[in-house]
Amino acid sequence: MDIFEALAKRCSVRKYENKPVPREILEKLVDAGRRAPSARAVEPWEFVVVTDRGTLTELAKIATTGTFIGGAAACIVVFCQETKYYLEDGSAATENILLAAAGLGLGACWVAGDKKPYAEAVSRVLGAGPGLKLVSLISLGWPGERVSQNKNRPLKDVLHWEKI
Amino acid sequence: MDIFEALAKRCSVRKYENKPVPREILEKLVDAGRRAPSARAVEPWEFVVVTDRGTLTELAKIATTGTFIGGAAACIVVFCQETKYYLEDGSAATENILLAAAGLGLGACWVAGDKKPYAEAVSRVLGAGPGLKLVSLISLGWPGERVSQNKNRPLKDVLHWEKI
Repeated sequence: MDIFEALAKRCSVRKYENKPVPREILEKLVDAGRRAPSARAVEPWEFVVVTDRGTLTELAKIATTGTFIGGAAACIVVFCQETKYYLEDGSAATENILLAAAGLGLGACWVAGDKKPYAEAVSRVLGAGPGLKLVSLISLGWPGERVSQNKNRPLKDVLHWEKI
Repeated sequence: MDIFEALAKRCSVRKYENKPVPREILEKLVDAGRRAPSARAVEPWEFVVVTDRGTLTELAKIATTGTFIGGAAACIVVFCQETKYYLEDGSAATENILLAAAGLGLGACWVAGDKKPYAEAVSRVLGAGPGLKLVSLISLGWPGERVSQNKNRPLKDVLHWEKI
């Protein structure tokens, strides 16, 4: 899929078909994530790909803003070493994965991790040590809902030439 | 360009040809930025597109890690309202712009804004009020250097199945 088509089509999908996402596709998504830029090229990220139904159900219970993870085919959890710019780096990697998912016709949704009271519990379930910060949980699956058009703020409102 | 080609080709380019980037292309890049996801769909971003040579030179002097902005054809500066998740949202928008730039054959580089001592000075130059946080400065231009291959951490090192 063309990059501009993927940018336009990406949107949050929270309902999924009861159908697995092949392992090679999940690898392709993580491969997209690791190609993100990072400050001073430290690449502080670690990606945990969860497909186990029991773990997905557990994550859905813990991550109160991501209850739909329980119905997802998979969840890619992005952790980063706590560097000065880990949140920028981990967010760029998350966005790469979301765009790659859109490019493959998958539905996905970014569930916040950083600053969430459930971050520690998610880390514990997935075996992430205290040096790793939870950045995001990306729920994934074949779309099980009709996806609404993005209603973004229009270009003329957000673009400022030379000065604000 | 295919999304996966753009993901693979994107890398930091800090030298540019002395050749302008057309206004329509700059608009296309900001359009990519505004299509990023944002927490609770608040879309906290504002994009300032700088092409004025004097301002680019000034930004290059102020932003000590982005001295190459002085030789760029343009710089897109990403600001966000200070919401709880502004850094995630602004970083996703920045990454969208970098991928769109790669897709159009442009060179670009993410210069950090948040947490930088020069953030306030950049805001002052561009007329951004105290409610806006500087997230990034994206220097842009037609590539003036041969771009090295990414030497990312290999997939097998960053991908963990089910647990870390």
